[in-house]
Amino acid sequence: MYNQADLKNLVNKAIINLSYNTEAEKLIDPVRYILSIGGKRIRPVLTLMACNLFNDKIDDAVMPAAGIEVFHNFTLVHDDIMDQAPVRRNFPTVHSKWNINQAVLSGDVMAFVANDCFLQTPHCCLAKVFKVFNKAAVEVCVGQQLDIDFEKSGIVSQEEYIRMIELKTSVLLAASAKIGAIIGGADDKDAELLYEFGRNLGIAFQIQDDLLDIYGDAKVFGKMAGGDIVANKKTFLLVKALETGSAEERKQLNALFSKSNIDPEMKIKKVISIYDKLNIRSATEKIAKEYFDTAFILLDKVNADNERKKELAQLASSLIGRDK
Amino acid sequence: MYNQADLKNLVNKAIINLSYNTEAEKLIDPVRYILSIGGKRIRPVLTLMACNLFNDKIDDAVMPAAGIEVFHNFTLVHDDIMDQAPVRRNFPTVHSKWNINQAVLSGDVMAFVANDCFLQTPHCCLAKVFKVFNKAAVEVCVGQQLDIDFEKSGIVSQEEYIRMIELKTSVLLAASAKIGAIIGGADDKDAELLYEFGRNLGIAFQIQDDLLDIYGDAKVFGKMAGGDIVANKKTFLLVKALETGSAEERKQLNALFSKSNIDPEMKIKKVISIYDKLNIRSATEKIAKEYFDTAFILLDKVNADNERKKELAQLASSLIGRDK
Repeated sequence: MYNQADLKNLVNKAIINLSYNTEAEKLIDPVRYILSIGGKRIRPVLTLMACNLFNDKIDDAVMPAAGIEVFHNFTLVHDDIMDQAPVRRNFPTVHSKWNINQAVLSGDVMAFVANDCFLQTPHCCLAKVFKVFNKAAVEVCVGQQLDIDFEKSGIVSQEEYIRMIELKTSVLLAASAKIGAIIGGADDKDAELLYEFGRNLGIAFQIQDDLLDIYGDAKVFGKMAGGDIVANKKTFLLVKALETGSAEERKQLNALFSKSNIDPEMKIKKVISIYDKLNIRSATEKIAKEYFDTAFILLDKVNADNERKKELAQLASSLIGRDK
Repeated sequence: MYNQADLKNLVNKAIINLSYNTEAEKLIDPVRYILSIGGKRIRPVLTLMACNLFNDKIDDAVMPAAGIEVFHNFTLVHDDIMDQAPVRRNFPTVHSKWNINQAVLSGDVMAFVANDCFLQTPHCCLAKVFKVFNKAAVEVCVGQQLDIDFEKSGIVSQEEYIRMIELKTSVLLAASAKIGAIIGGADDKDAELLYEFGRNLGIAFQIQDDLLDIYGDAKVFGKMAGGDIVANKKTFLLVKALETGSAEERKQLNALFSKSNIDPEMKIKKVISIYDKLNIRSATEKIAKEYFDTAFILLDKVNADNERKKELAQLASSLIGRDK
């Protein structure tokens, strides 16, 4: 049985050893760069751990796991262009270190490097695994589109917001777990349970992430507290507040979130005071906990060794920051 | 046996019937748009025709053929961003009709729509076909990178230029033919011959395309004569002229191609007069013809019905504009 650290090492080794067409070095430099500046490797570790639930031999899952990580980083490179983000994981984003064209093209090649990893899946389950991956890949694009649409649209319901984060974040975690399970030899029922485990975990994770922007420890999470508020970003907290607040509170929030020339500290304070009045923190924590608990109930139903499931539960807890 | 028109219809039907995840309509609008504004469908027709060389049943090749066309259009959407091109096939490019972010994201989803098409390849040859496609997809990115690099670099040899167009244009034609052959049941030798046929044809086509910019009939080819000269674009003609010209002629060409405030007609005239002095037209025609002839010799070696090979030869001739 492998633990999280073992698997992260395995993934990192596979990523370092990826072979590229290096005829145009400039194309690959940003690929190596984005894959080298850290990242928790949660998705590929999830794949390997899900595989290890059913099988001691996890070698067959290593390349598809690496493929998921390459795909994930491809989406980061292109999302950062769209968001005009200057920094990722405390390093300059690809488009700011190079330029937009380079980020588009080097991102593109990563999609095919990811394919290449998936093409190393054993023949027996290649089609099945690739279909799970590709469906998720399309959905991640749909999620990004909804995210862009929501930033521009006035009213977004809690349901719509959760669907957006489900597509943008959760389906890839879900696919990561399911792909590992398939390669490990799980039956369809267990593979689907692991998909749903990942999906619920992902939603919990993203809602938690929105919470941590305000209520997290800035040192631990590497982000300025209230960064989302300053950036006028739609988060679960804002959606919830706009849904539950009075007409007056909605008006105040809409005014605050459309301003850019307001003092950031003052803006954060004012928004938080409205959130506090509406009990947004506890309402949000409650929803995140529901998804998290559902993920665990689903994991519990998987027909596999309890010790191994504990390892997966620990990974899930660490993702959600509940392992302390 | 199918002819070119039949196959183009088949491809267009498959493209119109592509199923999309339409949860975010805005994501798919540009995909439908770029796939609807024409295009000769040369690559997918080549796939189907190569399949039909070996097999009367070509149904299995239709979705992979559509996948190649979707991939090709994905590269056009992203290349047009990089080239800041306002027009494609006489219609606004995606990034000018929408915006850069939309072109990045809708382009991205096309890569996975293409994957989806390939995942509909029969199980028996899925891995083989997908690998041929994916290798070409990576190489197209490499070719685009070399093209960008060459635009910025001073001296590019004829050999380097041909390698760039081989990657950017030919390998996808080569892969299109090979994929059709594999699905049609060709043996490895014939599949490889068709790859090389497509590769040589693609190089001939691209060199011919460079020629037509100056010496083609503007009405037939839909481009302003000398457009590449005005845009300071590196073409085979320029590379050849810089390689064969005297120090003085090189100096003149470099000066002309670094100016942007010069009268376009005057610039074209001056460049053409240097090309004429150096016999660039006939030297270029000679090279294109060599590749074209090689393509035909390779096709001749393929172990298939001569009538069917004639159909493929006709497609190749029409591509190169020698069918009149």
